[in-house]
Amino acid sequence: MTDSGARLKALRQALAAAGLDGWLVPRGDAFAGEEVQAADERLAWISGFSGSAGCALITADAAVLWSDVRYALQMQNETDSNWQCYDTAKLNVSKWLAGHFSGEARIGFDAMLMPVATHTRLLDELKTHDAEGIALVAAAQPLDALWDDRPPRHISQAWNVDAKHHGRGRDEKIAAAVAMLKEQAADALVISAPTELAWLLNMRAMDLAHTPIVLAFGLLTADGVVQVFHEKSALEAIDKEQMEVHPPAHLNDALAAYKGRNVWIDPAHCPFALTKILEAAGAQIIQKPSPLGDMKVIKNAVEASGFRAAHRRDGLAMVRFLAWLDGAQGTRTEMQAAEKLQHFRSEGDNYLMDSFAAISAAGAHGAIIHYRATPATDAPLAPDNLYLVDSGAQYHEATTDITRVILLGNAPKDARKCYSHVLKAHIALDRQQFPHDTTGAQLDAITRRKMWDAGLNYGHGTGHGVGCCLGVHEPPSIAPKASAALKAGMVLSNEPGYYRAGAFGIRLENLVLVVDRAEGFLGFEHLTLVPFDRRLIAVELLTPSERDWLNAYHSEVREAIAPQIAALADKDEQKAVATWLETATAPL
Amino acid sequence: MTDSGARLKALRQALAAAGLDGWLVPRGDAFAGEEVQAADERLAWISGFSGSAGCALITADAAVLWSDVRYALQMQNETDSNWQCYDTAKLNVSKWLAGHFSGEARIGFDAMLMPVATHTRLLDELKTHDAEGIALVAAAQPLDALWDDRPPRHISQAWNVDAKHHGRGRDEKIAAAVAMLKEQAADALVISAPTELAWLLNMRAMDLAHTPIVLAFGLLTADGVVQVFHEKSALEAIDKEQMEVHPPAHLNDALAAYKGRNVWIDPAHCPFALTKILEAAGAQIIQKPSPLGDMKVIKNAVEASGFRAAHRRDGLAMVRFLAWLDGAQGTRTEMQAAEKLQHFRSEGDNYLMDSFAAISAAGAHGAIIHYRATPATDAPLAPDNLYLVDSGAQYHEATTDITRVILLGNAPKDARKCYSHVLKAHIALDRQQFPHDTTGAQLDAITRRKMWDAGLNYGHGTGHGVGCCLGVHEPPSIAPKASAALKAGMVLSNEPGYYRAGAFGIRLENLVLVVDRAEGFLGFEHLTLVPFDRRLIAVELLTPSERDWLNAYHSEVREAIAPQIAALADKDEQKAVATWLETATAPL
Repeated sequence: MTDSGARLKALRQALAAAGLDGWLVPRGDAFAGEEVQAADERLAWISGFSGSAGCALITADAAVLWSDVRYALQMQNETDSNWQCYDTAKLNVSKWLAGHFSGEARIGFDAMLMPVATHTRLLDELKTHDAEGIALVAAAQPLDALWDDRPPRHISQAWNVDAKHHGRGRDEKIAAAVAMLKEQAADALVISAPTELAWLLNMRAMDLAHTPIVLAFGLLTADGVVQVFHEKSALEAIDKEQMEVHPPAHLNDALAAYKGRNVWIDPAHCPFALTKILEAAGAQIIQKPSPLGDMKVIKNAVEASGFRAAHRRDGLAMVRFLAWLDGAQGTRTEMQAAEKLQHFRSEGDNYLMDSFAAISAAGAHGAIIHYRATPATDAPLAPDNLYLVDSGAQYHEATTDITRVILLGNAPKDARKCYSHVLKAHIALDRQQFPHDTTGAQLDAITRRKMWDAGLNYGHGTGHGVGCCLGVHEPPSIAPKASAALKAGMVLSNEPGYYRAGAFGIRLENLVLVVDRAEGFLGFEHLTLVPFDRRLIAVELLTPSERDWLNAYHSEVREAIAPQIAALADKDEQKAVATWLETATAPL
Repeated sequence: MTDSGARLKALRQALAAAGLDGWLVPRGDAFAGEEVQAADERLAWISGFSGSAGCALITADAAVLWSDVRYALQMQNETDSNWQCYDTAKLNVSKWLAGHFSGEARIGFDAMLMPVATHTRLLDELKTHDAEGIALVAAAQPLDALWDDRPPRHISQAWNVDAKHHGRGRDEKIAAAVAMLKEQAADALVISAPTELAWLLNMRAMDLAHTPIVLAFGLLTADGVVQVFHEKSALEAIDKEQMEVHPPAHLNDALAAYKGRNVWIDPAHCPFALTKILEAAGAQIIQKPSPLGDMKVIKNAVEASGFRAAHRRDGLAMVRFLAWLDGAQGTRTEMQAAEKLQHFRSEGDNYLMDSFAAISAAGAHGAIIHYRATPATDAPLAPDNLYLVDSGAQYHEATTDITRVILLGNAPKDARKCYSHVLKAHIALDRQQFPHDTTGAQLDAITRRKMWDAGLNYGHGTGHGVGCCLGVHEPPSIAPKASAALKAGMVLSNEPGYYRAGAFGIRLENLVLVVDRAEGFLGFEHLTLVPFDRRLIAVELLTPSERDWLNAYHSEVREAIAPQIAALADKDEQKAVATWLETATAPL
């Protein structure tokens, strides 16, 4: 646990000197993505809290931390007595501010770390709480000067995506985006999501541990040129057609040149600081979701093939892992298992990195939805329990994300019943045909109904979009309030679950591609090719057609994976894995 | 068809004299309900169009009519060559205005006929279309002076709802509402929906043909008094506890008295004119959905019993009608059948009026979702086709709404298959258990999935809330984009359908009450008690459990209706209806 006393004291001195009554520390960098570099873990540095979402506020007499319900316990465990912790859903930042400051107050924030939409929302909330006397003041970041051992930024060498993987040239993508700029009479688009920049330019890099992107801003002009604000040396290998490279420090001047012209920004991720520059320069700001976001989520035929190919290789890695696990049962820990799985994946062609830190969770840890094993928690894979493993990888041609639950020894009470109901929900979504314009909320309900019938449910969404060698989480969602429609070419996860606190967690996740079906209807093609644990299926709870689905799926898996096993170098492993696969995919 | 030339000419002269470039004529009165009095059918008077939704705009050189897709044909049929007609979804009023007037324009409207939310939406849309030069000008209504033979307003005698029907006294309802006013620091609430006024005061009347309400505005003050602005003579029979009656003309002065105080209005139905009065007087306006709306939709135990009782009687009327229909097959028309059904209903205790004009549709007319038989269209119930009848009634204790589809002679091609799939969808919703917070959108998808599986779908929502001896349509909805959660005590319709243009229409509608089920889960209790036509069911398309559901439902119907048949006065009818019911509810 961090002793935050000295850090808070230093920060409070800096705030007093700047005439501020408080300072906001979001968990995030300037690029508003899910993942940040170590140099941007300011929230963890000041508070000790290492969760992937949250925000802190430091005032003269309080240090407050917010995150969502999944991090309730972790907030308490990772902070010292200087901190008070809240669930955002119950008491948000604005409400706390309104209760704490009865009159006027000046709350500082780093305008590069706050997206426009967040700023707007905070102002709206303060208004709702009749706390308009509380001013949000964009100011210089005081933390970086106090942070002695701040890690350096990591700038990696970017590469061009091979045409056999991207399927659509930069020129075509830029032309399509420029057409949308013209529809809005926009002279330029601020590209504030690095995944969109990577997609548009067919460029990838290793600036982050799990998302293969360049952490840089871009500016697409209506004449079809993309200005990238990044270290020139890092982009040496990149094609320069329709692209200019400028030092990051030139971004402000580039924006300021749009005096009197129209600049499109996406409020969901464009930093508030950039809109202030545009406003000061007298540019007209168009606030709309970026056109690149909608284009990126529809995978073309080459990308769809890439997903299939990557999943065959990912399936082999998982099958080798599961065969190893059954052999090694009881002699390994969560962290050792995760390391072994990463090793199997890394032996596959085109592997770049894991797409997120694997969740390797034995027994009751499986019920903690975002559990990460640490040396302090690392548990043995003990018998007579369930083991949940949620993992994935980035390959040159696509991204994977899969969850399986494995029986260790004998099944705990209710585990087979609950596993079977989650499997029924998974199958229901996989084979549902649905008309165009069907939303994620509608498909979410169709998935859950099988579990509702049994009085079961789960507290997370059913699915999320997955990028193509990009973010493992992207729009749209399949979730109770997801209002966006699914479209052919999208890749999403199908991951219903069930969690019994203190006992076990179940989540069964495949990735699926949205494909055209009968006229006017869409459906799913599953991409993931890994057996479900037959030992956990209560066959009597499946309908005949559900059992047919499972047997057909297992045949598919066997056909795709068996030939790859035959090519394994180690003959002992080859034999063991082949035997394991045959048993694991035998008809039920 | 109305010859609109002379009316348009007179209106244009009035507009020119008033310095206006156009005039908006919505289909609606000051109370923003679905139903209006003949005196408020201004849209029909000026355009000829008699649909239940739409809007006209008359400028110096154009007369434009908008409605939604269900009225596309009717707009064309009912208007003369002076009119151009559009589907609102394709070209809305604002977009047309933006295209027609390149610079400034003054478009007049009657501020009593435009809800605040509509006004806000129009302004937003004009802004979106860069047409902020077009001003919406509240002005005196020019049509009423031109309308020579305008029917008089109908003012009926109101009555008190019996305590055995309302289940919750006026004092309790007012106390609960006042508590919500205090939460918002509101000094008064404008009651602009007459159904809310009727509910709050436990008062009903016959001001409309299908909704038993008093067409009046009310004002609930924070000290627990309801001021009603209405003719005193019409309210003579009404209890006056916590209630004051003022002439309608005093409403403006009553609002103007709130200078410097907080007045709550519901933008969905409060006329724009009333907010202008409040603003001019210096009152603070709170714009939020009315608290009465949320209270009204949750039926208490007495109201739930009323729904059950009314549906038993309504079931008898429907069964008598269906028995008569099978006997009279081929010798009756749509209008004659509707009249007969109304006659059977009117013989039941506590019958007040039909809850809407019945849809009595033979063959291809059934595919016109909002078909109303007129002397010009009245078709015989010819053999070898389907007959769709959607109807309901207002009883003192509740409201009904039911749709059944009857086979006349032999089934047309695909009719049994389609009927069976609609029935499967109906059953799926009826027996679905779901957690708290489940939305109408989620339940809509669960209903449709059975039809999607067969490549079928329907272009309307699955269900709507139903008032208790109030509007037959109220929130919430079960529909693809319905984001409100269902709660115990709500009454909704369950009405999936299928429509084959030029051939037949199928819709199977019961009303259902939301009830508590297993812990944390809700479910439905069906209220409607009328057989589904067994002759149209392809038994092989039902699963065993669907067949069980149907047989159990038919037993319930038989048990509820048979004793009532035994009490019929006409012994011949008694015998015929009893035989019919036995056959109609025999196990499949």
